[in-house]
Amino acid sequence: MSDRYDRAVTIYSPDGHLLQVEYAQEAVRRGSTAVGLRTNDCIVVGVEKRSSNPLFDERSMRKISMLDNHVVMTFAGLTADARVLISRAQAEAQSYRLNFERPVTVEYITRFIAQMKQNYTQSNGRRPFGLSCLMGGFDGDGKPHLYQTEPSGIYYEWTGSSTGRAGTTAREYMEKHAGDTVDSMDEQTAVKHVVRTLMSGTEQSEPQLDVAVLRFNQPLRMVERQALDDHIRAIRGEIEAEVKTRLVPNKL
Amino acid sequence: MSDRYDRAVTIYSPDGHLLQVEYAQEAVRRGSTAVGLRTNDCIVVGVEKRSSNPLFDERSMRKISMLDNHVVMTFAGLTADARVLISRAQAEAQSYRLNFERPVTVEYITRFIAQMKQNYTQSNGRRPFGLSCLMGGFDGDGKPHLYQTEPSGIYYEWTGSSTGRAGTTAREYMEKHAGDTVDSMDEQTAVKHVVRTLMSGTEQSEPQLDVAVLRFNQPLRMVERQALDDHIRAIRGEIEAEVKTRLVPNKL
Amino acid sequence: MSDRYDRAVTIYSPDGHLLQVEYAQEAVRRGSTAVGLRTNDCIVVGVEKRSSNPLFDERSMRKISMLDNHVVMTFAGLTADARVLISRAQAEAQSYRLNFERPVTVEYITRFIAQMKQNYTQSNGRRPFGLSCLMGGFDGDGKPHLYQTEPSGIYYEWTGSSTGRAGTTAREYMEKHAGDTVDSMDEQTAVKHVVRTLMSGTEQSEPQLDVAVLRFNQPLRMVERQALDDHIRAIRGEIEAEVKTRLVPNKL
Amino acid sequence: MSDRYDRAVTIYSPDGHLLQVEYAQEAVRRGSTAVGLRTNDCIVVGVEKRSSNPLFDERSMRKISMLDNHVVMTFAGLTADARVLISRAQAEAQSYRLNFERPVTVEYITRFIAQMKQNYTQSNGRRPFGLSCLMGGFDGDGKPHLYQTEPSGIYYEWTGSSTGRAGTTAREYMEKHAGDTVDSMDEQTAVKHVVRTLMSGTEQSEPQLDVAVLRFNQPLRMVERQALDDHIRAIRGEIEAEVKTRLVPNKL
Amino acid sequence: MSDRYDRAVTIYSPDGHLLQVEYAQEAVRRGSTAVGLRTNDCIVVGVEKRSSNPLFDERSMRKISMLDNHVVMTFAGLTADARVLISRAQAEAQSYRLNFERPVTVEYITRFIAQMKQNYTQSNGRRPFGLSCLMGGFDGDGKPHLYQTEPSGIYYEWTGSSTGRAGTTAREYMEKHAGDTVDSMDEQTAVKHVVRTLMSGTEQSEPQLDVAVLRFNQPLRMVERQALDDHIRAIRGEIEAEVKTRLVPNKL
Amino acid sequence: MSDRYDRAVTIYSPDGHLLQVEYAQEAVRRGSTAVGLRTNDCIVVGVEKRSSNPLFDERSMRKISMLDNHVVMTFAGLTADARVLISRAQAEAQSYRLNFERPVTVEYITRFIAQMKQNYTQSNGRRPFGLSCLMGGFDGDGKPHLYQTEPSGIYYEWTGSSTGRAGTTAREYMEKHAGDTVDSMDEQTAVKHVVRTLMSGTEQSEPQLDVAVLRFNQPLRMVERQALDDHIRAIRGEIEAEVKTRLVPNKL
Amino acid sequence: MSDRYDRAVTIYSPDGHLLQVEYAQEAVRRGSTAVGLRTNDCIVVGVEKRSSNPLFDERSMRKISMLDNHVVMTFAGLTADARVLISRAQAEAQSYRLNFERPVTVEYITRFIAQMKQNYTQSNGRRPFGLSCLMGGFDGDGKPHLYQTEPSGIYYEWTGSSTGRAGTTAREYMEKHAGDTVDSMDEQTAVKHVVRTLMSGTEQSEPQLDVAVLRFNQPLRMVERQALDDHIRAIRGEIEAEVKTRLVPNKL
Repeated sequence: MSDRYDRAVTIYSPDGHLLQVEYAQEAVRRGSTAVGLRTNDCIVVGVEKRSSNPLFDERSMRKISMLDNHVVMTFAGLTADARVLISRAQAEAQSYRLNFERPVTVEYITRFIAQMKQNYTQSNGRRPFGLSCLMGGFDGDGKPHLYQTEPSGIYYEWTGSSTGRAGTTAREYMEKHAGDTVDSMDEQTAVKHVVRTLMSGTEQSEPQLDVAVLRFNQPLRMVERQALDDHIRAIRGEIEAEVKTRLVPNKL
Repeated sequence: MSDRYDRAVTIYSPDGHLLQVEYAQEAVRRGSTAVGLRTNDCIVVGVEKRSSNPLFDERSMRKISMLDNHVVMTFAGLTADARVLISRAQAEAQSYRLNFERPVTVEYITRFIAQMKQNYTQSNGRRPFGLSCLMGGFDGDGKPHLYQTEPSGIYYEWTGSSTGRAGTTAREYMEKHAGDTVDSMDEQTAVKHVVRTLMSGTEQSEPQLDVAVLRFNQPLRMVERQALDDHIRAIRGEIEAEVKTRLVPNKL
Repeated sequence: MSDRYDRAVTIYSPDGHLLQVEYAQEAVRRGSTAVGLRTNDCIVVGVEKRSSNPLFDERSMRKISMLDNHVVMTFAGLTADARVLISRAQAEAQSYRLNFERPVTVEYITRFIAQMKQNYTQSNGRRPFGLSCLMGGFDGDGKPHLYQTEPSGIYYEWTGSSTGRAGTTAREYMEKHAGDTVDSMDEQTAVKHVVRTLMSGTEQSEPQLDVAVLRFNQPLRMVERQALDDHIRAIRGEIEAEVKTRLVPNKL
Repeated sequence: MSDRYDRAVTIYSPDGHLLQVEYAQEAVRRGSTAVGLRTNDCIVVGVEKRSSNPLFDERSMRKISMLDNHVVMTFAGLTADARVLISRAQAEAQSYRLNFERPVTVEYITRFIAQMKQNYTQSNGRRPFGLSCLMGGFDGDGKPHLYQTEPSGIYYEWTGSSTGRAGTTAREYMEKHAGDTVDSMDEQTAVKHVVRTLMSGTEQSEPQLDVAVLRFNQPLRMVERQALDDHIRAIRGEIEAEVKTRLVPNKL
Repeated sequence: MSDRYDRAVTIYSPDGHLLQVEYAQEAVRRGSTAVGLRTNDCIVVGVEKRSSNPLFDERSMRKISMLDNHVVMTFAGLTADARVLISRAQAEAQSYRLNFERPVTVEYITRFIAQMKQNYTQSNGRRPFGLSCLMGGFDGDGKPHLYQTEPSGIYYEWTGSSTGRAGTTAREYMEKHAGDTVDSMDEQTAVKHVVRTLMSGTEQSEPQLDVAVLRFNQPLRMVERQALDDHIRAIRGEIEAEVKTRLVPNKL
Repeated sequence: MSDRYDRAVTIYSPDGHLLQVEYAQEAVRRGSTAVGLRTNDCIVVGVEKRSSNPLFDERSMRKISMLDNHVVMTFAGLTADARVLISRAQAEAQSYRLNFERPVTVEYITRFIAQMKQNYTQSNGRRPFGLSCLMGGFDGDGKPHLYQTEPSGIYYEWTGSSTGRAGTTAREYMEKHAGDTVDSMDEQTAVKHVVRTLMSGTEQSEPQLDVAVLRFNQPLRMVERQALDDHIRAIRGEIEAEVKTRLVPNKL
Repeated sequence: MSDRYDRAVTIYSPDGHLLQVEYAQEAVRRGSTAVGLRTNDCIVVGVEKRSSNPLFDERSMRKISMLDNHVVMTFAGLTADARVLISRAQAEAQSYRLNFERPVTVEYITRFIAQMKQNYTQSNGRRPFGLSCLMGGFDGDGKPHLYQTEPSGIYYEWTGSSTGRAGTTAREYMEKHAGDTVDSMDEQTAVKHVVRTLMSGTEQSEPQLDVAVLRFNQPLRMVERQALDDHIRAIRGEIEAEVKTRLVPNKL
């Protein structure tokens, strides 16, 4: 039935679905996992990356970008689409600064991105952006915010969220393990939590990750490779311990 | 027969239907239920919300928005489409204020939204908005109004109405239980009536709701979680009592 | 044969039909019945309305609108399309007043609406308006006029006409019962005639109607509910009497 | 074979036909018959009209219009299309007067209409006008001219011509009965000839006709109902006489 | 195979054909025959015309037009398309005169027409002109030129050429009978040759023809009916004589 | 498989082909053969032409044109497309002269043509140019250059090349017989080589050819008919001699 | 399944793929192999070329171009598309110099190219560029950079990369043999490494290659034919030696 309503322009199927938007969401679901977390005083974002390659400049494939010097973004989906959205959002943030002499709020720049996305779901002969974005940053009052937008142009605010290939698994993990305590986590714990969330959604034992921390009035700081490896090793230890604990009662 | 007339642009089927508009209405029918009520001195709007999540910022998913500081809107259907319509309506309201030095009437902003919707049903290569909106507010003379618009661009004024998944059930409930008395309800009763209407359309025993009250020259007030829970408990009690009452005669 | 010539744009079928225009006419034929009458000194328009509902504001669904303070319009077909046409016609009438310092003639505003309709039957990727309109009003010399336009953009002047679901039945009734005497009818008789015409096309015994009267240099006056009910009762009595009369000879 | 080349835009079929143009001509062939005649000093145009109706204002359905005060037009085909063409031609004639301080020639305004028609056969996504027009009038030197344009944009000058449902029959009649003598006909004879031509193409014994006469520097004059009836009666007498005459030799 | 490559826009078939252009050429092949001849001091153009009709103004159907007062054009194909091309070419010639204070050359105006034709074979959603044109005239130095353009936009210079229904037959006749002697023909001989060429391509014994002669710095002169009839009679005599001559040897 | 990817717009087939571009190349392959050669001090271009016709002006069908007075172009493919490209290139060359007060380089004008071609392979609803061009000329320093562009917009520089119906055969002939010696050929030898190359790709014993020579700061010179015939005769002699030589050893 | 989602415009297939983009990548995969390498102080780019031809000017087919005098680009895919991208990038670089009085960074010009590519994957009726590009150059601080962009508009920075027909094989070779040591390679070794990488992806024993070296503040230098041949011979020697070494243990 659906094979007639998903072509040429974004139109409704008889049961009220916008299939091109749902297929764009599928492109997101095929992307590498991205995670964001907001504590009381910092934003932590993390993302899986392609397996390492000695010829490759890792920084250039980094899926973590600044929209302005107080807002960081990561994403799952089509990287080329992301570059374009980031570029336009950066221009909007700069132009806002010039016109109003203060930085955009995190919600303002989120809404800007969301509306551009929605617009591409309702314009003749354009495809939706194949992109789910996590935007985190600080408003002028030092309050941190974390938002997520989808290909449809929908957006919500989260304490922590994830998207991409293992988005659902990862978010369930987050909800279960850190739901109530996120606000008061210290940076160290938050980073470890983001790493563990990313690990929850992958089968790789040595996952390649990029994790970054943004604090109020400070530049973005990428977490060092060494620190990440320490977290990964520690988490693996904890997981094994958990498994054993669980196995013991089973044997009883 | 109909499978040929619903593609590419919004055109007529041989029996005079605009199928894309009807499919957009289907998107509305799949949305969460929204309810609006207008008494002599206040507007009450309520809407089902997604089940709670510790990581989620409930305010950002709230489907209740101000178009100006005297008009509130809720909706059923595509949230991303709603954001765009709200944003344009807010801009129009502001621009009206600047040009005419007084706020828009509730009907003016309703007509603005309705015409934008109609326009998308008659323009080349655009899909209709998948959105049913309830707009409530006060005109300059303090008189409250409640309007509803559909994807076709049609709009009507109501004392009370509902839309979305359980829209029809809910409206029937409203007509039966509060039709004549709405005008003179006090705020407390109106809120309870909105809650009960939302409950009439759901099978959840603990429905997640957002309910808000707007009074003349006052800011929008969200009804507290506690108050909602009290209403829900009270209503559940009443329902059980009713059922018993009805059972007794049946046994005779 | 026809299933190939009615899509995408308004084009001719091999036998010279514009099918999209005919399907739009079908949308008119599915609308509620509307009637207009022009006597020597007044315009009477009437229209069926949705069944009453205690939560519903009847005025907002009223299908009788002023295009300027001397021209009234009613219609059958897509209400959302009507709102747009009315809004543009109102703007045109106002702009005409500003430019020429006198009101538009009834024919001028009719032609404006008709040409907009025709234009939508010949433009790339737009659907025709699903709307049949009855425009009645007074020119500067106090002479009353009543016009009707169709989705094709065709328009004619009538002493009395009807459109919508029971348009044909109703018009036949009018021709038979009031053709020659319309000009000299007094307002009371004209209103009754409009009511009876609307009743001729419905099977409801208690039809819901809106009837309005426009006189030269006077505001539009809606006929009171009570007066309508009196007419309906009287007419029902007459019909029964007629039936009896007719039955007697049959028995002979 | 032809069913593939007649859609979406006006394109050629493999044998060099423009099918949309031919279908538009079909719409003309379904229209009521129109006739035009040019003598040395007057233009006579006539057209069948819908059967009379006491509620109907005959003037508003009249298919005879002035393009300027020296050029009259009648037509067969889509009336709504005609209204648009007439309106644009009137504007062109007025603008010409303003710019050049003299009226358009009959050929100028004919070419204007013809080029608009041709343009609609070669533009993306537009349908041809479903209209055959007869334009008659006087140039500045008092010389009368009569032109005919078709949906393709083709136009020719005629002493007398006809179009619409009975166009071919009527034109054959004209050629046979008045070909050589048209120039020198007096107005009375010309009107009678137009009436008889219209009668040649209909089976109705009491055809409803509109006939108008335009003379140099005089306003258009509609031929009175009474005069038309007299002509119709006289012509019917002549026809019967002819038939008898023909029957007598047959009996021999 | 070809039935997939000839629709919507002018695109290539797999074997490199532009089918819409070839179908437009087919429209030319269905048109009435046109012939052009260039001697040392005159241009003669001739064209078949529709059979005579007493009501018809032959001048208005004449397929021989002046592009400027020194260039004449005839054509085969869609007359409405021709009118548009002629009109634009006339405007270009006039504008050239104004800007450069001298007339266009015959090649300049030919190239103008040819490029407009080519443009319609490469533009989105437009059909090619269904028109083959013969343009003859004199450059400023008194030198005569004769050009031919096709629907593709191709154009060549000829001493003599023909196009339309009997284009190929007629051109073969021309090549055989007058190839070498065209330059030095006197006007009388040239006209007779054009008449005979037109006769070579028709089966009618009394063909209806328009023939015109253009000389340097002189107005176009249509050859009189009488002169054409004399030529036709003489040619018919010659043909019969030829046939007899040929029959005699056959009998031997 | 390919029959789905070659319509409406120039898009990729699943194996990465642009089929409309390849079909345009097919149109080139159906064109008459064209050859270009560049020695140290001259450009020689040659092209097959249609068989002679006494009524035809050979110059007007000449497929050798000047883009500016120092660049000559010949081509294979759609002549009407060529005329348009030539015309635009001439305008560009003239405008360059005006702006920069020196002539374009051969590469500049080649790139201009190539980019226009590429643009038509990537624009909505336009077909590629069906044209392969050979551009030869001299830069300001007197250095000769010869370029070739294809429908895709690709272009290369050559010492000698050929295109059209016998393009591949002809180029192979060129490579085999003159590859190394082209630079130092005198004009006479170069012309003969071009003639022989054209003859290598045709089966006609008396081929119709146009050959032209361009030298630095000199006007284009068409090689005389007589000279061409002498070359053809001489070459035929040489071929027969070669064949005999080859036959003798075979007989041994 | 996929055969429905890859036409007309670039839209999503149900599993979230952009098929036109993937087909464009296929066009890249059919192109000749290109390689780029960045050491601490130089950029080396190399590309396979068409087999030599005595009539062909090798420089004009060279797939190595300067975007500005400090950035070199090579590519795999559609050469005509490349020319257009190069031309626009050159213009952008020049305009940047004029506006900001300093050269673009390598990343800036890469992003410019990438965004143009992405734009063509999201615009109505345009096909993506069939092009993978390697851009290498020096920023103002003398730091070398090497980027690669794909048809989707994605781009990354590399120490060394390859694309085209043997792109994957070649890159695997690079990773294996030079991954860690690229930074510190001297120019000689880098060139040899590029040659060997190109050879790893071809079966030709005498591959035709173009290799170029760019150093800070120096013009681009093409590696001499002789030097390339020496490298090829040396590498062939090494390969044979390796094979032997490997064969010996096998024999044991």
